[in-house]
Amino acid sequence: MSLIVIGSIALDDIETPFGKADKIVGGAAPFACLAASYFYEKVKLVAIIGKNFPKSEINIWHDHHINTEGLQIDEKRMNFYWSGKYHTDMNSRDTLETGLNVLEDFDPVIPESYQDCDYLMLANLAPITQQTAIKRLKKRPKLIVMDTMNFWMDIALNDLLDTIKLIDVLTINDAEARQLSGEYSLAKAANKILTMGPKYLIIKKGEHGALLFGEGKIFAAPALPLEDVFDPTGAGDTFAGGFIGYMAKVGTVNFNNMKNAIIYGSALASFCVETFGTEKLKNLTEDALADRIQQFVSLAKFEIL
Amino acid sequence: MSLIVIGSIALDDIETPFGKADKIVGGAAPFACLAASYFYEKVKLVAIIGKNFPKSEINIWHDHHINTEGLQIDEKRMNFYWSGKYHTDMNSRDTLETGLNVLEDFDPVIPESYQDCDYLMLANLAPITQQTAIKRLKKRPKLIVMDTMNFWMDIALNDLLDTIKLIDVLTINDAEARQLSGEYSLAKAANKILTMGPKYLIIKKGEHGALLFGEGKIFAAPALPLEDVFDPTGAGDTFAGGFIGYMAKVGTVNFNNMKNAIIYGSALASFCVETFGTEKLKNLTEDALADRIQQFVSLAKFEIL
Repeated sequence: MSLIVIGSIALDDIETPFGKADKIVGGAAPFACLAASYFYEKVKLVAIIGKNFPKSEINIWHDHHINTEGLQIDEKRMNFYWSGKYHTDMNSRDTLETGLNVLEDFDPVIPESYQDCDYLMLANLAPITQQTAIKRLKKRPKLIVMDTMNFWMDIALNDLLDTIKLIDVLTINDAEARQLSGEYSLAKAANKILTMGPKYLIIKKGEHGALLFGEGKIFAAPALPLEDVFDPTGAGDTFAGGFIGYMAKVGTVNFNNMKNAIIYGSALASFCVETFGTEKLKNLTEDALADRIQQFVSLAKFEIL
Repeated sequence: MSLIVIGSIALDDIETPFGKADKIVGGAAPFACLAASYFYEKVKLVAIIGKNFPKSEINIWHDHHINTEGLQIDEKRMNFYWSGKYHTDMNSRDTLETGLNVLEDFDPVIPESYQDCDYLMLANLAPITQQTAIKRLKKRPKLIVMDTMNFWMDIALNDLLDTIKLIDVLTINDAEARQLSGEYSLAKAANKILTMGPKYLIIKKGEHGALLFGEGKIFAAPALPLEDVFDPTGAGDTFAGGFIGYMAKVGTVNFNNMKNAIIYGSALASFCVETFGTEKLKNLTEDALADRIQQFVSLAKFEIL
């Protein structure tokens, strides 16, 4: 049994109202893998890095028991690069520059030792690459979670529509749910998206929490009001990684377990945004996580008699 | 023991993506009174109407046991009038026209029979008028809840700051909390506003629910994802009225009761937006309300072992 995470690995230049960071490790896969590693010991990475990627980072992943047999290293080309600048509200950002480099023709090879996969996290990547990964698994995983974004809806909608037919859980933000469905009401948007393939839909709303739709039910998870959001990059990837990591830990796919998985994913995401990049996710203690989870419990709890 | 609601009474022209309504009864007080009436039988209104206000509406309020001894009727001047148009996202609107009319020099006279007031709802009005109402009560109520809006922050900030020193609970939306505090983070905004006078702050976030801050604690209430929001006018007033009505019913002012009061207020607001104006609030059944409350319970509930 294992959990495969496939996604981009980036070097990011990030500017927020609180500061700047240059060439830090980012991309969907590192956030998702580290987050998942807090719940599950058999996280297996499928991704590609370029010649300028700091190899020391890989050791940190190994410390988190992340298997990197599926990590391709292209010593001839530069790593995938992204630079962005956040606005004051931290909910919107401008992409300043993107260098696809090694990601341009990334072929997601699944090592033979990964074939016992029960949980597949398709972190943000071109939908066609996500689809290829699904098709290369000899056995259909018990749970396939896919994260995507508006960018792919703009330039690869057909691939995206084909890919979501094959998955179980789709995670997108509210604007993306509206774009994908053409419905403004999130309730209507969810109903429509649930006819497109996924059995469950998670709508990520950043500082407003998240909504889970599926099995004819809805769950609204709160977000912890944070004093400082230092850098939101990777929050969605961390959320998704925490979500599937928790699901792999409990081992039974149902709505109730997904509710808790969303709380755990949200808790990890709340740590993620407290520093630049993956810093905070590298050194979380069990106590700190348990404490944060209790904050979520007390935040949302009420008893109507 | 009684609950006084003081606020505007308007005739509204409203345009939403779903239709238009002309000269329908609106304003903060009708929404708040009707909402409160579902929990508490002794709601007492202080407000003013003009010569063109449909008197039949008053009978409906009487059916809801709303005491209108404090309702002033100016047979010489026109009623307060507002017209607005909502954008597709229903979260933003343009005010097209406002006619203050009778509201311009409204003097909030408190009838002697209202003086046993334990719960005071200062629904949206000029802060100076809200302040006058507080000062005219011989005994300080057990709970003073004040709703206000950005308009008063723009044109009467000093009055507003003076008035919130005298109250217990302030209800504003997220943009207003940011404006009033000068802080973008809602956690920081809340901390700052709680030093300005109110012991509790409720931040209304529309389709994203509400946050309660106070006693060093935070509660996040979800909003029910609705298929159709027909007309959001009055949702905040309904929320506030339901909130204080429920508090008056339970009779003990503390954080836990406020959490439930927010859920009840949110449930009533979720009905409010399903029709134009106060229509839905006039004829709610106990069963429909109980059912809606259960939807909120199941929406927010999770159990982490």
